[in-house]
Amino acid sequence: MVDTRKVYVLGIGATPIGEHWDESLRTLMTKAATSAIEDASIERKDVDAIFVGNMSSGPLQGQEHLGSLLATWLGIPGVAACKVEAACASGGAAFHQGFLGVASGVYDCVLVVGVEKMTDAITRDITAALIMADDQDYVAFTGVSFVGLNALVYKAYMDKYAVEQEDIALFAVHDHKQAVNNELAQYRRPVTLSAVMSSPLIADPIHLLECAPIGDGSASVVLCSEEFLKKYGGRDVLIEVSASIVATDKLSLYDRDDITTLSASVKASRKAYKIAKIEPKDVDVLEVHDAFTILGVIHLEDLGFARKGEGWRLLKDGELEIDGKIPTNTMGGLKARGHPVGATGVYQVFDVVKQLRGEAGKNQVDSPEVGVTQSVGGVGGTVVVNVFRRVR
Amino acid sequence: MVDTRKVYVLGIGATPIGEHWDESLRTLMTKAATSAIEDASIERKDVDAIFVGNMSSGPLQGQEHLGSLLATWLGIPGVAACKVEAACASGGAAFHQGFLGVASGVYDCVLVVGVEKMTDAITRDITAALIMADDQDYVAFTGVSFVGLNALVYKAYMDKYAVEQEDIALFAVHDHKQAVNNELAQYRRPVTLSAVMSSPLIADPIHLLECAPIGDGSASVVLCSEEFLKKYGGRDVLIEVSASIVATDKLSLYDRDDITTLSASVKASRKAYKIAKIEPKDVDVLEVHDAFTILGVIHLEDLGFARKGEGWRLLKDGELEIDGKIPTNTMGGLKARGHPVGATGVYQVFDVVKQLRGEAGKNQVDSPEVGVTQSVGGVGGTVVVNVFRRVR
Repeated sequence: MVDTRKVYVLGIGATPIGEHWDESLRTLMTKAATSAIEDASIERKDVDAIFVGNMSSGPLQGQEHLGSLLATWLGIPGVAACKVEAACASGGAAFHQGFLGVASGVYDCVLVVGVEKMTDAITRDITAALIMADDQDYVAFTGVSFVGLNALVYKAYMDKYAVEQEDIALFAVHDHKQAVNNELAQYRRPVTLSAVMSSPLIADPIHLLECAPIGDGSASVVLCSEEFLKKYGGRDVLIEVSASIVATDKLSLYDRDDITTLSASVKASRKAYKIAKIEPKDVDVLEVHDAFTILGVIHLEDLGFARKGEGWRLLKDGELEIDGKIPTNTMGGLKARGHPVGATGVYQVFDVVKQLRGEAGKNQVDSPEVGVTQSVGGVGGTVVVNVFRRVR
Repeated sequence: MVDTRKVYVLGIGATPIGEHWDESLRTLMTKAATSAIEDASIERKDVDAIFVGNMSSGPLQGQEHLGSLLATWLGIPGVAACKVEAACASGGAAFHQGFLGVASGVYDCVLVVGVEKMTDAITRDITAALIMADDQDYVAFTGVSFVGLNALVYKAYMDKYAVEQEDIALFAVHDHKQAVNNELAQYRRPVTLSAVMSSPLIADPIHLLECAPIGDGSASVVLCSEEFLKKYGGRDVLIEVSASIVATDKLSLYDRDDITTLSASVKASRKAYKIAKIEPKDVDVLEVHDAFTILGVIHLEDLGFARKGEGWRLLKDGELEIDGKIPTNTMGGLKARGHPVGATGVYQVFDVVKQLRGEAGKNQVDSPEVGVTQSVGGVGGTVVVNVFRRVR
């Protein structure tokens, strides 16, 4: 790797996350993209390329070729476009491709859009679509669900580190508390720990309220080069993408030495920190991919914010709060903001950029300079870590 | 766009195309990738990132997350990886992403793999998967098939330019003739024009033998930077990727002013020629995405090798032959080499590189220096044009 061309976030946009019975895949992504383009104060024709992050439009909507579809609906056919998929990290992976596009010098201004439309499919089909993130021939064929796989991780973790479930389930309480002030969040109401612990078991030991919900939504980011920025002025506050790193791991749990850590998360974050010249202590705002409470805790450890087996302490000590040591999932995370799979990685960028710009409203962290997002595909088969820095 | 870092083709590999009842999606792509890595004389661990081009693994195999899956099966979990989709141009789009990866300076050595496994699904599911290349809500819901859409183009073209079908159907005869000497081709036997014209009608006026077949296969390319090349020596013959351009068009035919031309093909090729500093007359070997005979003819025109309405003359005059003005689809094209959808764009690169290296055996073009591949998604919703040059 050599020094690359600098990449900046010029605009962001997103739809609310929820059950959008009156929206389709295309209207959701068109709205988010339009909103990001307006936020960037550019015109649609300024966009050179579109990268759509999406996991399941084929199985759920019978629709592929989302790149050309979105170019058409944005009224800018002609631009380069494609869909990028890395299971639940599809949004993060699309962001990375957009980063490569600008960093390469091939594109000056790219639009990254994450989208997923899940609620208008039947539950059986959604469950089948989600397990496609793992190995069909060696794992999914057994009938295990994606929740089931994470339940194995949860049990192994509690067993290895002798941690109480209540201390892990707190992650859901944390996320719901943050989401109350996020007008785009799917669930804007607090939940108590006892409500989480008494909600139905989905896959032992995972309770319903420990799972990210199924929802529809789309988020978008406009990335650009320094040259483009000079031409278009840009806003007072400027956010640079200091690093964007993708790492993989063996796809399935059965194949790994230790299922209580995601090695892709460790690899991607260490590499990203090195390139961005930061350490965990420099991070002012963090977004982790807490599809289940246990993953939130494991991510805190793998990303270097706590020792193994101790991520839950940050939660319990209030260090993930807005005024804590490492404000995390400040707009509600996957659990409460929501988790429209392929869109989530881009929502994370949206939320961190809001914070770095000082536009996070009641949940604003005090003058953050460095933000990190972590997007996870499958049970850690792919992890994308991005580092953002406010440079003015 | 600024000048980018140079990108080279270091290795290529591919499986035979056919009905591989004894292979799966993963074994096909692992074989092709392994073969490209061996051809490049590098080790697996030298690969920084993997880009998998595939359209329908979700609907057909119930398998997404191909990036992590392939990294796992290659024994190099840790590398960056994702899947890239742009309908039938998925292979071309994945190649473009790999190009961006090296051009950006983020990666020094990337592996591009195209794969599709089609024959172990039932016909109804394959037909449903292919039409996902067009608009589900406005087009596919009518029940029209992908062949049906191309039949509309065929009729409009014959009507507009008063061309006889026999002159267009010749494309199938041409491809089959070339494939005889390609040991990886799905159909290594010649067909006569009368056999083509008397084969069953699939969608009037398209006959069975005017359609690219359904098949399984995987092709792979190793791309690298100049720095990487210096370190690894590389082979005597060296191929540079002079340009890699993606363009879109309005997704569906009903939305276009003229369905006898693919504007994305015109845009992508002109831009690619400009960047590569070539004109059509400089092209020594050409691969066009002839999913149907009519498309082969239209591509020749849109890419600048014939005037509109006259592409068929090149065929009839023998100018597409190995010793013609513009040797085209020299290893059998989509019709006879085969068309495992998401793999095709990479097979095209494989075939052109074989030619530029002088390794095309009985079908070798005399000392070619410049090769062009054109990969098409849907009925031209996406087009990828790549220019290759032998630089030593």
